[in-house]
Amino acid sequence: MATYACRSRDELKKEYNIMVSRFEELKAMGLKLDMSRGKPSTKQLDLVSDMLTVLTDPRECIIDGKDARNYGDLAGLWCAREYWADVLGCRPEQTFVGGNASLSLMHDLISWAYTHGLKDSVRPWSKEKRIKFLCPSPGYDRHFRITESFGFELIAVPMKPYGPDMDVVEDLVRDPMVKGIWCVPKYSNPQGYCYDMLTCQRFANLKPAAPDFVIMWDNAYCVHEFVGDFVEFPDIISMCAEAGRPNMVFEFASTSKITFPGAGISVMASSEENIKYMTKLISAQMISYDKINQLRHVKYLQNKEHTIELMKRHAQIMAPKFDMCLKILRQEVTAKGIAHWHHPTGGYFICVAAMPGTARRTLELCRQAGVVMTEAGATYPYGVDPHDSMIRIAPSLPTIEELEVAMRVFCVSIKMAALEKYLGIYPY
Amino acid sequence: MATYACRSRDELKKEYNIMVSRFEELKAMGLKLDMSRGKPSTKQLDLVSDMLTVLTDPRECIIDGKDARNYGDLAGLWCAREYWADVLGCRPEQTFVGGNASLSLMHDLISWAYTHGLKDSVRPWSKEKRIKFLCPSPGYDRHFRITESFGFELIAVPMKPYGPDMDVVEDLVRDPMVKGIWCVPKYSNPQGYCYDMLTCQRFANLKPAAPDFVIMWDNAYCVHEFVGDFVEFPDIISMCAEAGRPNMVFEFASTSKITFPGAGISVMASSEENIKYMTKLISAQMISYDKINQLRHVKYLQNKEHTIELMKRHAQIMAPKFDMCLKILRQEVTAKGIAHWHHPTGGYFICVAAMPGTARRTLELCRQAGVVMTEAGATYPYGVDPHDSMIRIAPSLPTIEELEVAMRVFCVSIKMAALEKYLGIYPY
Repeated sequence: MATYACRSRDELKKEYNIMVSRFEELKAMGLKLDMSRGKPSTKQLDLVSDMLTVLTDPRECIIDGKDARNYGDLAGLWCAREYWADVLGCRPEQTFVGGNASLSLMHDLISWAYTHGLKDSVRPWSKEKRIKFLCPSPGYDRHFRITESFGFELIAVPMKPYGPDMDVVEDLVRDPMVKGIWCVPKYSNPQGYCYDMLTCQRFANLKPAAPDFVIMWDNAYCVHEFVGDFVEFPDIISMCAEAGRPNMVFEFASTSKITFPGAGISVMASSEENIKYMTKLISAQMISYDKINQLRHVKYLQNKEHTIELMKRHAQIMAPKFDMCLKILRQEVTAKGIAHWHHPTGGYFICVAAMPGTARRTLELCRQAGVVMTEAGATYPYGVDPHDSMIRIAPSLPTIEELEVAMRVFCVSIKMAALEKYLGIYPY
Repeated sequence: MATYACRSRDELKKEYNIMVSRFEELKAMGLKLDMSRGKPSTKQLDLVSDMLTVLTDPRECIIDGKDARNYGDLAGLWCAREYWADVLGCRPEQTFVGGNASLSLMHDLISWAYTHGLKDSVRPWSKEKRIKFLCPSPGYDRHFRITESFGFELIAVPMKPYGPDMDVVEDLVRDPMVKGIWCVPKYSNPQGYCYDMLTCQRFANLKPAAPDFVIMWDNAYCVHEFVGDFVEFPDIISMCAEAGRPNMVFEFASTSKITFPGAGISVMASSEENIKYMTKLISAQMISYDKINQLRHVKYLQNKEHTIELMKRHAQIMAPKFDMCLKILRQEVTAKGIAHWHHPTGGYFICVAAMPGTARRTLELCRQAGVVMTEAGATYPYGVDPHDSMIRIAPSLPTIEELEVAMRVFCVSIKMAALEKYLGIYPY
């Protein structure tokens, strides 16, 4: 069959009627599925539940001559700093190991920049007349929300399959009001793109007008392949140092999708100078993060190699779900010419670019049929997708059986929305 | 023997020579003891190390139909909110359960007030010309440091044995620039005073000019008796509500000195309206705190009654240490008339008011003999004790044998410092 664009109005009407009746059938099933967030599934939680028994002997809490049960070591247990240095390819002195959420390390960094200023700030950001922040889009809503919550002006930067459009970035950073950029360099949220080496080099060699411009390098999916072998990633901290701006980047990661999502450990890595500066600021906020949990993680994950082995077992759970989504999309949508998507090999999402003007309607239909997806627009600054096109699918939480039904709902919905657009039907 | 004040110069010289030679003997022992912080001892950590095995079955992670291992429940697991409501005497809806540090909940509250404003703020505090904050002194250095770090003007308020001098507080809050006050209502840090009911009532009935004036009610030692039975404390949240300002108080507590100091859980409690407002703000910072650790604590501590039973076992470790300190102080210092102190029955400190002008010198001598105490002045805003008198002793960490020697060092030092003052000797 031809793409919708090549069909006659009668053919489209016929197709629409078929879709409506299929939609009603699915709706009648009374589904209740949540695919709005990149939540690991119960199977994945069970996979790592040995975490609960990996540290049971109090004598094992004494490490490097220190008792992990007591106060102290604000920047983290040394063995935890070594662990993250191994994973990220930097040095332990360049790491600060935090609590259960890298998001809060990122938030707090921006908050400290706002209230006190970063290492190379002339003044706290709260004293600047205006702050602009670059948001490669589509991107991660929680990133954008942090900078929005401090009243910064968010500027969308187009995403390419090899990273943010660096021509645009290099141009924008000549404005001294532009203070930073959000990045997810590996398996970007939501498209699953990996920044290529040239993009990383252009990042490291940025010459922003603002002396305290910060690259928020959220390496959230640094070991999160679900297809194929581990893919190496560059040490952006060294690259920035070599390019002469060692304090320009902060890298973040966590075990949220390696062990328990709500009970993992996180890391912030940067130049030693930055880490010292931040540790001093954080000492007003915190005596130390949870070092027992840091120790638990070091014992369980051991090192980068062992972590990658564990991720292969996560992949065995994740891959069939992504396969299922992509298969159904291919079967039901490809030939219609109304959407396109990238086949990710890691990360937590599939991002479908629907026909402009149909994303919101598609998700409304899904919702009516009991399938909740990430809100339309969420992947853009201020929650507004200018083309009303991008849809983020998070296949990790449902079972494969649930996922199949959910994707049927999604495919019918995206087709209905496109057909309504072609036919000029606006039933909402 | 008479007090130093009543002795002749010759008698004082003779006494000084005795002290100097005793000091040299103690110094020659090459001690290395840290009594600078209220750190629980290894015995106390061992006492609660069943924490490590209280939650080992993944099936037990499913609670109230939710999986504590996954994302969600920003304000905390419901059972953890119920636990804290039981301990604090408020309702679960009035609690927000945090991570391993109540200090960071307090810091973040002040930070949010600064960047976004509190519920009843007219504008964020960063947009105010000037902010003043009340610091009952002596008090907790980490409290004062939070408000100092945001550039607020710290105003010392005298501490009385029944709480801060409320005449002074009531007078100061008429200034709209005064935005809040730090309180440790039970076993205050460092003196171990408990606010009496009248003081609490006067707090609840404060009519500050600033609509967003906040009482930072740090109930850090709410169940921390080491002598005698549990002492009830009032529900300050209800009291403020009844007095017509439900949003004026935030109460804080943690398990830092109940289970593991670095790996416990914390709570912030206030009006439901405040908790809703704060939860919304915190949602930009955090998906959820560590709910596995919350569950671990609920399983281990169960409820208020069971927690109080555990605290009695901590008391068995703590009480002999405080007894030792107080006994040696009594033996060696009381009759000299150069210092006075309160006998606390809970909390973590003994606060010695030395002869004015001798605290710094006393601690310098202790340091020379290998005993590190909290820095002189630390218990006052900006680290400056106007009388150079208050010394905080933290007896919890050393063993009882170490403590005995440390206290001998302390007593010799405080006497030497006083004698030098009387004799006009300034060897430093």
